[in-house]
Amino acid sequence: MPRYALLIEYDGSRFFGFQRQREAPSVQQFLEDTITLFVKHPVIIHGAGRTDTGVHALGQVVHFDADHSIDTDKLRGCLNFYGKGKGVSVIDIVHVDDDFHARFSALERSYIYVILNHQSSSALMEGRCTYVYPVLDIEAMARASQKLLGTHDFNGFRSVHCQANNAIRTLNKCTVTQHGSYIVTTLRARSFLHNQVRIMMGTLIQIGLGRQPVTWIDDILNLKDRVKSGPTAPPHGLYFKAVTFDPDVFTQSSRQLVFL
Amino acid sequence: MPRYALLIEYDGSRFFGFQRQREAPSVQQFLEDTITLFVKHPVIIHGAGRTDTGVHALGQVVHFDADHSIDTDKLRGCLNFYGKGKGVSVIDIVHVDDDFHARFSALERSYIYVILNHQSSSALMEGRCTYVYPVLDIEAMARASQKLLGTHDFNGFRSVHCQANNAIRTLNKCTVTQHGSYIVTTLRARSFLHNQVRIMMGTLIQIGLGRQPVTWIDDILNLKDRVKSGPTAPPHGLYFKAVTFDPDVFTQSSRQLVFL
Repeated sequence: MPRYALLIEYDGSRFFGFQRQREAPSVQQFLEDTITLFVKHPVIIHGAGRTDTGVHALGQVVHFDADHSIDTDKLRGCLNFYGKGKGVSVIDIVHVDDDFHARFSALERSYIYVILNHQSSSALMEGRCTYVYPVLDIEAMARASQKLLGTHDFNGFRSVHCQANNAIRTLNKCTVTQHGSYIVTTLRARSFLHNQVRIMMGTLIQIGLGRQPVTWIDDILNLKDRVKSGPTAPPHGLYFKAVTFDPDVFTQSSRQLVFL
Repeated sequence: MPRYALLIEYDGSRFFGFQRQREAPSVQQFLEDTITLFVKHPVIIHGAGRTDTGVHALGQVVHFDADHSIDTDKLRGCLNFYGKGKGVSVIDIVHVDDDFHARFSALERSYIYVILNHQSSSALMEGRCTYVYPVLDIEAMARASQKLLGTHDFNGFRSVHCQANNAIRTLNKCTVTQHGSYIVTTLRARSFLHNQVRIMMGTLIQIGLGRQPVTWIDDILNLKDRVKSGPTAPPHGLYFKAVTFDPDVFTQSSRQLVFL
């Protein structure tokens, strides 16, 4: 049973999330159905992370088992042929060891959250960033983001539907940087809770708007209560950027983000 | 008759070009119709440059005359409200002198051409770059681009439908740079001929593919014959980046292209 890992990019607005749904197009369903056509037997796709409807991926990683050895260049070509116009592209496919697992072997996941902060929204970035009209205090957002770093009980920053046993996670990176009218937050952790990034971003935006002080983060971390934190920020500003494995499995790197 | 200049961004895939057409949506038609609703009299939009179907704009400039003074913030809000989901956004609107003309006052126009050169196309940049599968020789393209600089008879690089009296133009900038898998060519001139950028890019791509030598540019400049140059490169890799005026008229800058 050879195992294959795929590095994939997708436009989240074209799917009802990563995970297979009964009656709505998902990234998992597209991949399982198309790979099944190619290998001629049913396959199960395991992803490094589930993304919600609207969330994009620059470097999602998935794996599946085939019952025979396959030509990875041909499968990549096949998936990109069927994925064209559907919002998915496969950057790389590699044969991996039997003990590799897209979800359990992942050492770190990184996300990018893109805010356009300007008097006008962008025609070319519509659905690919979160538009905020009032001027954000980036310096306050950057200071608040530093308070999220490290190991905390992030219960105040997860969806009430989150099924993880506990909310203790370690945030390794959380930086807020400005690129012209865009504000880009980069976040890295071994794993994230359900909606954690979007709730943290919704909270940082409230601080950027001046509606809450930087110390609000301390309060939420202490109270550990979802009702105390900010709203869940929109999905279309969020990009699942990359997954780290040791050793690295892909020959290609995950996609860059181009701001227009 | 106060005159107003607009800095606009658009997604070229949503329009049949800039110029008003009898029966197809154009940027000019959207602007004229929406501004007419606002000012309550017919207006004529003059653009700094016409863009073909599929060509995007990060900083097109247009002007129109109103028969009364208007609130530019309100008009911007109105246009962005009606333009949302239609592929246009208005970055800035300013009152300008009566002798300002979007087309005739323009000192320089700049364009960007974006090529994705990778084994896989990009789901998120589909329709926003030109995808080339074989590895391009960027160094050869960069050397060839330098031969286009300066004043030449660009007859070999214009559409047979071009209506300009002569083909002598001065290219002030033409640089080819790499950003990961993307190859970005930046071009600047006071004015360009019809399809000039796309034919120059189609020619540079042939050189990058190794199908023609760098000296092919000299031959085309000498022969001045459209049939000797490369194919017209696809429109969706092309962005009308900015227009230079002296003095500068806008308080905002044109949209960015950032690779992250």
